[in-house]
Amino acid sequence: MRIIQSAREMQEFSEKIRNGGKKISFVPTMGYLHEGHLHLMREGGKRGECLVVSIYVNPTQFGAGEDFERYPRDLERDSQMAESTGVDVIFCPTNSDMYPAHYQTFVNVEEVTQNLCGLSRSGHFRGVATVCCKLFHIVKPHTAIFGKKDFQQLVAIRRMVEDLNMDIKIVGMPTVREADGLAMSSRNAYLKEDERTAALNLSRSLLLAQKLFNDGQRDAAEILKAVTENLKGIPLLRLEYAKICDTETLKDLPHLGKEAVLAMAVYVGKTRLIDNYVFGEALEI
Amino acid sequence: MRIIQSAREMQEFSEKIRNGGKKISFVPTMGYLHEGHLHLMREGGKRGECLVVSIYVNPTQFGAGEDFERYPRDLERDSQMAESTGVDVIFCPTNSDMYPAHYQTFVNVEEVTQNLCGLSRSGHFRGVATVCCKLFHIVKPHTAIFGKKDFQQLVAIRRMVEDLNMDIKIVGMPTVREADGLAMSSRNAYLKEDERTAALNLSRSLLLAQKLFNDGQRDAAEILKAVTENLKGIPLLRLEYAKICDTETLKDLPHLGKEAVLAMAVYVGKTRLIDNYVFGEALEI
Repeated sequence: MRIIQSAREMQEFSEKIRNGGKKISFVPTMGYLHEGHLHLMREGGKRGECLVVSIYVNPTQFGAGEDFERYPRDLERDSQMAESTGVDVIFCPTNSDMYPAHYQTFVNVEEVTQNLCGLSRSGHFRGVATVCCKLFHIVKPHTAIFGKKDFQQLVAIRRMVEDLNMDIKIVGMPTVREADGLAMSSRNAYLKEDERTAALNLSRSLLLAQKLFNDGQRDAAEILKAVTENLKGIPLLRLEYAKICDTETLKDLPHLGKEAVLAMAVYVGKTRLIDNYVFGEALEI
Repeated sequence: MRIIQSAREMQEFSEKIRNGGKKISFVPTMGYLHEGHLHLMREGGKRGECLVVSIYVNPTQFGAGEDFERYPRDLERDSQMAESTGVDVIFCPTNSDMYPAHYQTFVNVEEVTQNLCGLSRSGHFRGVATVCCKLFHIVKPHTAIFGKKDFQQLVAIRRMVEDLNMDIKIVGMPTVREADGLAMSSRNAYLKEDERTAALNLSRSLLLAQKLFNDGQRDAAEILKAVTENLKGIPLLRLEYAKICDTETLKDLPHLGKEAVLAMAVYVGKTRLIDNYVFGEALEI
């Protein structure tokens, strides 16, 4: 496995791989890898002859007061996990290489980034779209693989790739969960024991929504009412939002006729967690 | 010469050319070709084995009340000129292919687009950056060639390509002028005879600035005063701006120590013309 820091070196490496007729698959991450990431990497391994994983905590997608500084980092551990999962290249650029002085170009995906996390995390998706656009140009993948846990991110990246005519296949993979249902996230490392227990109520809420849906409920307000009631009054928890949206436009959906997703963001102590459930899919908890 | 309308078909064509080990050079245009464009194409022919020219009047770079509808178009004439200049492919997409319903992704180059034309043409450079980003992804060039007549556009595209890590060499070519000095532009077709005569004052102003510079003047305000005086009171002419800027940041420069450009926009009747002079270069009029 190679570890490449320089964007230029990565780009030259990828260009050679492509010119050699090989397919590149790519998993962009912020590191502190967990089983969810490894799942994406294994899928990447199947979809290309050269598997690149980026590890980069991207400053432009963090807002003021968010957890950019304390976001967990452990490149040595990440490297071992990546290597044993068959990764060919880790790309871990520096901030000064990615955003040199006078950096000033940003990609905005305008509509699908308005709702849900876009309501509170101003500028977040601008940062996500911009860094993915940059990483795609550097790594030159044929296929890029994202987790569905970050549902809005996946929708925004798909829109960017389609709108900007990027010749990249975007693959979304199901959320990987702990045995007790908690969606895997690098931010779970922030949780103290009692918070970890309280956090189980996110996936429990999704199960509740699934049950209501399977029982025939199609009124979004009714499902949201039950979900919200379920999360109310639980110590350490504060619901930021729970919404039911069209899976493509991410606009609020009053009635579950079209493909719909229940998406939520919840503070557990000071840790902000997100989770979601696409109605009709099997929620494996 | 091939004419390709579909973005998908163009992209597949280009991917095959690249996989065959050939270099693609690219000249993006809005059509209604003139000698300035042909100049870019001849340069493109030297820099690649496959020369692609796009002809597309991009709606997103025109503001409300600007000349999108009446912008001159003549694909048949353009095709003949391109073919006889050695162009391999004309790419002329449709608006519905470039901007389908729910299109929502835009590229913003923030700083270098603020001054000069950015002061009056709100959204213009957002449209330019976005369409060039799209065209680059579709045509997949190794080299793209732009004219220096649209100086701010060239600076913005260079910044976008560098900031977004696009693996494309951007080449800027000197402005091509009519025998009497008027910078070539498709918009010159709008000019009536008396307007055509009045328009000569743009290049005359550049010559005046060059003379002052060659005589040792380094105070931007003094040069701008002379240029402005020179354009004042001429019937049919209305100066929008004349500014002296740093050639990289496009910020106003009070003193000509660094590389500087004199850029101007002038209305001649209802036609808006731009021209510029990079101090120290030879102005060939």
